[in-house]
Amino acid sequence: MSHVLNLNSDLGESFGAWAMGSDEAMLRVVNSANVACGFHAGDPLVMLTTAALIKDCGVSLGAHPGFPDLQGFGRRRMDIPLPELEAMLIYQIGALDACARAQGVRVTHVKPHGALNNIACVERKVADAVARAVHCLDPSLVLLAPAASQLIYAGREKGLPVVEEIFADRAYLDDGNLVPRSQPGAVIHGAQASLQHVMRMVEESALISINGKRIPVNPQSICVHGDNADAVVTAQAIREGLLKAGFRLVGIPEFF
Amino acid sequence: MSHVLNLNSDLGESFGAWAMGSDEAMLRVVNSANVACGFHAGDPLVMLTTAALIKDCGVSLGAHPGFPDLQGFGRRRMDIPLPELEAMLIYQIGALDACARAQGVRVTHVKPHGALNNIACVERKVADAVARAVHCLDPSLVLLAPAASQLIYAGREKGLPVVEEIFADRAYLDDGNLVPRSQPGAVIHGAQASLQHVMRMVEESALISINGKRIPVNPQSICVHGDNADAVVTAQAIREGLLKAGFRLVGIPEFF
Amino acid sequence: MSHVLNLNSDLGESFGAWAMGSDEAMLRVVNSANVACGFHAGDPLVMLTTAALIKDCGVSLGAHPGFPDLQGFGRRRMDIPLPELEAMLIYQIGALDACARAQGVRVTHVKPHGALNNIACVERKVADAVARAVHCLDPSLVLLAPAASQLIYAGREKGLPVVEEIFADRAYLDDGNLVPRSQPGAVIHGAQASLQHVMRMVEESALISINGKRIPVNPQSICVHGDNADAVVTAQAIREGLLKAGFRLVGIPEFF
Amino acid sequence: MSHVLNLNSDLGESFGAWAMGSDEAMLRVVNSANVACGFHAGDPLVMLTTAALIKDCGVSLGAHPGFPDLQGFGRRRMDIPLPELEAMLIYQIGALDACARAQGVRVTHVKPHGALNNIACVERKVADAVARAVHCLDPSLVLLAPAASQLIYAGREKGLPVVEEIFADRAYLDDGNLVPRSQPGAVIHGAQASLQHVMRMVEESALISINGKRIPVNPQSICVHGDNADAVVTAQAIREGLLKAGFRLVGIPEFF
Repeated sequence: MSHVLNLNSDLGESFGAWAMGSDEAMLRVVNSANVACGFHAGDPLVMLTTAALIKDCGVSLGAHPGFPDLQGFGRRRMDIPLPELEAMLIYQIGALDACARAQGVRVTHVKPHGALNNIACVERKVADAVARAVHCLDPSLVLLAPAASQLIYAGREKGLPVVEEIFADRAYLDDGNLVPRSQPGAVIHGAQASLQHVMRMVEESALISINGKRIPVNPQSICVHGDNADAVVTAQAIREGLLKAGFRLVGIPEFF
Repeated sequence: MSHVLNLNSDLGESFGAWAMGSDEAMLRVVNSANVACGFHAGDPLVMLTTAALIKDCGVSLGAHPGFPDLQGFGRRRMDIPLPELEAMLIYQIGALDACARAQGVRVTHVKPHGALNNIACVERKVADAVARAVHCLDPSLVLLAPAASQLIYAGREKGLPVVEEIFADRAYLDDGNLVPRSQPGAVIHGAQASLQHVMRMVEESALISINGKRIPVNPQSICVHGDNADAVVTAQAIREGLLKAGFRLVGIPEFF
Repeated sequence: MSHVLNLNSDLGESFGAWAMGSDEAMLRVVNSANVACGFHAGDPLVMLTTAALIKDCGVSLGAHPGFPDLQGFGRRRMDIPLPELEAMLIYQIGALDACARAQGVRVTHVKPHGALNNIACVERKVADAVARAVHCLDPSLVLLAPAASQLIYAGREKGLPVVEEIFADRAYLDDGNLVPRSQPGAVIHGAQASLQHVMRMVEESALISINGKRIPVNPQSICVHGDNADAVVTAQAIREGLLKAGFRLVGIPEFF
Repeated sequence: MSHVLNLNSDLGESFGAWAMGSDEAMLRVVNSANVACGFHAGDPLVMLTTAALIKDCGVSLGAHPGFPDLQGFGRRRMDIPLPELEAMLIYQIGALDACARAQGVRVTHVKPHGALNNIACVERKVADAVARAVHCLDPSLVLLAPAASQLIYAGREKGLPVVEEIFADRAYLDDGNLVPRSQPGAVIHGAQASLQHVMRMVEESALISINGKRIPVNPQSICVHGDNADAVVTAQAIREGLLKAGFRLVGIPEFF
């Protein structure tokens, strides 16, 4: 069992006149933020101001690139040829890193968003394309990927530093994938239930499926959501529970 | 009179299924390429492949950021608040530099595109915003700006390296601005007429207006267009004429 | 003094995953809704569901076309050539009318949005382009335009039915334009202050400027905003105040 | 064997500064044009000017709606929820019809584009969504769909008038689908080979697969492509061959 953990959250998802999320509140809870890069959410000004917030909070900064689909929030599968997908990832990560550098910080990890992440978890060719894009940009960038996913294996094979992620509020299938939101029991409700779910996985070094099956992994980073006030309360409870249990919470780069 | 000159051209303006320009032919003629960054033209794959072409040709690479207006090709004025404009520039330059780094090259200069460039030439506040965006990203990036424009003054005041640009095929007004395309005589036609126009300006170290007025400048880089086969022939003629006249043609970074 | 008035509000401004406005609450207050058409806000599904809501509420439906600038919410000036602007208006109005027809209602009026509306109020050529676009699509469509604006005159000259609009919560300059939001006193706060502002204008058949100047107009439709809960309360107070004062509130088509 | 046939082509695929296709030449050859609606290609001005051209040529006008993916030209699969897909189709058809009405013509048929068409040919739920969208907008709109596809069956079940389409320059698989472009023999090259392919299918009232298998259909409309000068020559040869063979060539509405 690792005694060092990380809390991450997806932020910077506002767009133009449309606000989303409780970024400032979440940045007081998490150790790392995954920031949208303008293709599925975020825009240059949102990215620049989010980078400034992140710097102020001393949280580590990750790129959260997605499909070019604002209207669908990057949640709809798109079949993009792999060379084009790689180019889109390089473009997005570079754009965010420029916004970060303009504020005196740097992008230190990458976590794909939404449908792209889901596909990369199960389709090895897509996972490899993600790993190639990250690696060719900077081989020291950390790939933050769901534990037991193809993305983990692709990142390792490419030689990228990899951090294994588990989800605080989502139930797992026996194969290690998330229970789809369309199915009952997909989402774990309430701060205490989420904390227990997380504690069991980190203590047993395994994903625990909805049927009780154990899939051995190395849970390092816990994804918490910040889309509403309740979510921040849950995230806060998980943070406090983990600290109380003796875990040390760190930014993504501190795993290496 | 400077004995060192640069030929630059705007490239990478294809988008998705739509091709534009004769990039490969132009890259055999010019010393520097200004590459669209996906807001007014170009897309991630076009940017990545253009960066590879540029590397192969040994030409220096500039970012050519524009307004977020694909349909208008960045040629329509947009009144964007300056903090947002700065963010858009940082985003675009960073995205292109990532594509360049993925191919083993770097962005070494910035030249705004279309309506943004036109506005920055005459509105000092916009020029200052451009200079700030470039400077905060990397103070060693060269600003390639029309001779005698506000952009030149803004870049110098900010401490950026600045290269003064003249246009081979466009006539000038007495105030140093280009004759608008809507007016007669705006465009200089034919390779020889363009070469003479250029030769006179570099020999006299001045813009020569349509009325014969001289505006002292330091012409360093000559913009040639590559939108059609004729344009490439004109560019080639200017290149040969300048070499024959004893000028040395260099990439943008070699001015410093 | 007209005894028949209309309350209108801008609705359907959500986009994809981003919600905006209190559309259902506002639809219980107003007589007409101006619905975004996908260029500055709204998307096809939002338009379709908003049209269904509008049908259920028995409110009259207007198109609220804007500049193609989602990120800027159509609030940034764009210099679009007039033939292209006309095409954009025709496209947007047609798209919304199709969504309306699919729900069994029709678009019966047009009100330009944001920066486009502001420009059309003072630049006659733009106002004429708006009037031409509406007229060529359907000469019986009503143009809902700010009282005393160039848009009113352009619509009348083109032969369109025109309804004069006043703003419940915005102060006027002596020339009949709105006090820019950047200036003090631009926005009138509070339900009672807004109601008094409206009552005075409808009773005097005039815009009352911030300096007390009277500009004779025929106030027919009152624009109320619905972006937050307070706004709905204000709109409700204006509605009740007007009904109590004996005005009859009607949909836009009922003026003709 | 039907003695009445139709030639259709996809047009209006330019976008902003990027031109595509030989629309004017093709409009002298075909009887019907399918016009892009701004989501995968085309823009409001292109749509308006294409509608004017179509009116001048006396050709029947169809909407050619696609996925919201300009960069991918609508050729990449997107998994869009069906209610949203229906809304997108209604939006696009309505937008084009408004452009058409502004020019004094009307949209009389609908043919989905690219990946959307491919998916609707084999996935009945998507085909049904297309049929619902067309029907709710106007049940007299003709659905132009590939012979033997699910789209044909969905259109018929919904009660839409349906026209069966075959492709002049594409080989068929034994199941009636097109041979994917990635496979050898997918495209039939040359005017004479295309004409023979078409003649055999219309004479035998069947799709003839690449292995010689016959799939009985009622070939009514022949899709010819106009993306280059050669394509126009091929289209012209097919037109002349069909006329010489005694077929009468008509617009889509004349089938009913």
